[in-house]
Amino acid sequence: MFKLRQMGIDTQSEHVVFINERSVRDGSLGFKPLDRVRVFEAGGADPSPRKVTGVLNFCHDGLLAMDEIGLSESAFADLELPAGTAVEATLARSPESVHRVREKLRGRRLSAGDFDAILEDVVARRYSKPELAMFVLACALQNLDLDELVDLTRAMVGSGSTLHFDMPVVADKHCIGGIPGNRTTLIVVPILASMGVTIPKTSSRAITSPSGTADTMAVLADVELRAPEIYRVVERVGGCITWGGALDLAPADDVLITVERPMQIDTEAQMVASILAKKKTAGATHALIDVPVGASAKVRTHHEAEELGRLFRHVATALDLDVEVVTTDARGPIGRGVGPRLEALDVLSVLRLEPEAPADLREKALFLAARLLERTGTVGDAGGYRAAQEALDSGRASACFEAIVDAQGRRELPPPARFRHRVEAGRDGRIREFDCLGINRIAKLAGSPANESAGVRMLRDVGDVVSRGEPMLEIHAQSATQLEFAREYVEQDEAWVRYGY
Amino acid sequence: MFKLRQMGIDTQSEHVVFINERSVRDGSLGFKPLDRVRVFEAGGADPSPRKVTGVLNFCHDGLLAMDEIGLSESAFADLELPAGTAVEATLARSPESVHRVREKLRGRRLSAGDFDAILEDVVARRYSKPELAMFVLACALQNLDLDELVDLTRAMVGSGSTLHFDMPVVADKHCIGGIPGNRTTLIVVPILASMGVTIPKTSSRAITSPSGTADTMAVLADVELRAPEIYRVVERVGGCITWGGALDLAPADDVLITVERPMQIDTEAQMVASILAKKKTAGATHALIDVPVGASAKVRTHHEAEELGRLFRHVATALDLDVEVVTTDARGPIGRGVGPRLEALDVLSVLRLEPEAPADLREKALFLAARLLERTGTVGDAGGYRAAQEALDSGRASACFEAIVDAQGRRELPPPARFRHRVEAGRDGRIREFDCLGINRIAKLAGSPANESAGVRMLRDVGDVVSRGEPMLEIHAQSATQLEFAREYVEQDEAWVRYGY
Repeated sequence: MFKLRQMGIDTQSEHVVFINERSVRDGSLGFKPLDRVRVFEAGGADPSPRKVTGVLNFCHDGLLAMDEIGLSESAFADLELPAGTAVEATLARSPESVHRVREKLRGRRLSAGDFDAILEDVVARRYSKPELAMFVLACALQNLDLDELVDLTRAMVGSGSTLHFDMPVVADKHCIGGIPGNRTTLIVVPILASMGVTIPKTSSRAITSPSGTADTMAVLADVELRAPEIYRVVERVGGCITWGGALDLAPADDVLITVERPMQIDTEAQMVASILAKKKTAGATHALIDVPVGASAKVRTHHEAEELGRLFRHVATALDLDVEVVTTDARGPIGRGVGPRLEALDVLSVLRLEPEAPADLREKALFLAARLLERTGTVGDAGGYRAAQEALDSGRASACFEAIVDAQGRRELPPPARFRHRVEAGRDGRIREFDCLGINRIAKLAGSPANESAGVRMLRDVGDVVSRGEPMLEIHAQSATQLEFAREYVEQDEAWVRYGY
Repeated sequence: MFKLRQMGIDTQSEHVVFINERSVRDGSLGFKPLDRVRVFEAGGADPSPRKVTGVLNFCHDGLLAMDEIGLSESAFADLELPAGTAVEATLARSPESVHRVREKLRGRRLSAGDFDAILEDVVARRYSKPELAMFVLACALQNLDLDELVDLTRAMVGSGSTLHFDMPVVADKHCIGGIPGNRTTLIVVPILASMGVTIPKTSSRAITSPSGTADTMAVLADVELRAPEIYRVVERVGGCITWGGALDLAPADDVLITVERPMQIDTEAQMVASILAKKKTAGATHALIDVPVGASAKVRTHHEAEELGRLFRHVATALDLDVEVVTTDARGPIGRGVGPRLEALDVLSVLRLEPEAPADLREKALFLAARLLERTGTVGDAGGYRAAQEALDSGRASACFEAIVDAQGRRELPPPARFRHRVEAGRDGRIREFDCLGINRIAKLAGSPANESAGVRMLRDVGDVVSRGEPMLEIHAQSATQLEFAREYVEQDEAWVRYGY
């Protein structure tokens, strides 16, 4: 019999169970490190006591007493028993659905029921990391056919909660990630909302990038809204820009991302399932998907983008979701700032029609808003751009954005970063493009998005002709060490910029 | 700047870095959970300070101060800096060799240099668990051709240390795991050593089974010998039975096993590479591989066994290792005991020629010893069985075993388990076979091998006719709870035994 302890360690996607190694060596537990064990309430007459399974880590004395069993944060939360409760532990088996993953690896098709069973176990954190990796790779390598892709997406939709708005048109947008800056959402949403279109946007925080839309919005307003608050905000102002992570929308996807990220496995099929499941569960009827195409973007060629568009349309139709896929050019950041605070400043300057507002961000937002206005039938064909422009230039979009910020809960803009460093051009030449991965890395090394004011400010645009020694970009950091990490990287080579025509 | 702290948590194959979440939220670290970070000595003038990379876990207050960075056991050991040292942390990239794994996933062949680079990073714990899983699956799914398999095996050989014995013949044996009991090694080694054959056997501890050969030997003698001690023992008595885990033999394999185990991915190619790399690095010139074939064994059909034999012979030839592969029948445990202490008792009773010694264990050991005696040229063709029998029946093998035990360091046999329960036949019938996985599971639930005296004692043999209510097996456990776990499992259904002809 052991006492339950909350370890205070967040192991994310994998439940971890901690025991004192002496409980095993000298005691009565017959476990090996990394065994899968079940922890459950001891004693009680309940024939099916509360239980949770996890992967075993051994601890030394000092961290855990011999009569304690510790749980990582998510495992402790799932077990829903108070610390100190008497618990037992025994060996657990891998979830039954793992067999189906192994069958997929051998080439068998997965059925809708298979995907449902697998994702249910994934969401309940019953898969260990290697098993999660196995599922991701099984889908990636034993290519999913179109029916399987639809079933996977439906299973993702069914893996959590959904939002519902009682409107004939609920608009949404998504941009395939990886492009620094690119905060069009914060402009498109108020343009559409100011024209009466319901657009309840739920966004992600940064996954591999230095800032996600939710990170950027978070420097201006509260983004951690629960469903009832979202309904309230959307009813009042027609739109919102919140973090989707707290809403339990397609949570299977959030778990799978934790292994996709280190493996850098990003298949088209998984991208389509992930994005459309999020749109569907967020209550959208119409969604615009922006696919940036470029040498350092996720999608490298227009041929790939077309194939992706075909998958999006096929799955969206099966989900009864109207989707339009557009491709855009990606030759570097959109806007000047990279990092939450710097991106928010770009957005505000576009909305406020400031003369120095980044033109590329404004134009891209107008283009996307136009497509969405036309697609939802809000304006007639070819009338979208002019309508979007009017909403922006009249100040109505800006006023709507301020109303959204107030409705969500206004935040004070954080102060500028304490440390800055200007990076100079290493040679003379014309800037052909910025490498998105390189720029993202500089911003991340500088501390973005955890440090909201950290990041990169671009001082030059694609197409500019520069001379050696001219300032190219400015690194913002909250500590001298982080500034140094970013500076070291950027000065090692100029892989973040390419010159030429 | 942070103070280094040893967390006292053994995370096994994956280095983990722990930081207080407030260091990120309020402080100057721009990290996200599960980011890959590099921790290194701060300040010093050293241009390449000591460093280690790991996966990031956030901690709550109480576990770690805001100015501390904690490391898991292996990461702390690798960094080789004392606790309290001033360290910094920054984002790290995935090892370059991971790109080659992704290329393999897309179907490219891997070269010898690729395998060397990958396994070097694997051994240095630079791969996160999902990346390890990706490598294992890349090899499993994009089938390795014969040249790749040889290169993988060579890279495993090169990933660590080797033993070397200056003898023309150094014998070794290996049994594909999964068969409960089956401790032939403890009989074969003294038979061969007593006849003057050098046989320095390094074995593994249990991986998925309730006891490995090293676990069983460990109840009789010290098995954690370093290389100089092994040389000393082998010089004195001609053979040894030790744990290979402390010798750094083909360590890449040990790391990969930590993800293969939860995924239950066990490809023929990986099995061949793993086993032959261990034999080669242990200094063998001649190796006998026992492939048990049965419905609940790792290898299910003789056809599979033949294919496996072909792979073993091809790779062994390339490694300049003489290998013989034999198949044996697997219809249940070999011997009566399952679990370290109970298996050791079986071995001792065979060596001591006790009348109740399990005949199957004796006969299998004699068969294997005979093959190895003939293969190494110690005796002429067809003379092996008789020679082995004489070594055993004369008491020379037993004397040699006692000499090995003394040379390694004798241990006192642990007392019997405190709790026992007899399991009865659920029906009348003839026992056609015992399910190896089922019997293993009972023993593991009872606490084996961590509790050396825990396990299962078989009371009936395959072929026996039993009546409902007759005792079939006895569960041994060190705690009432573990006895109960095993009893519950065994009484749920009779999946551990099959009746019929």
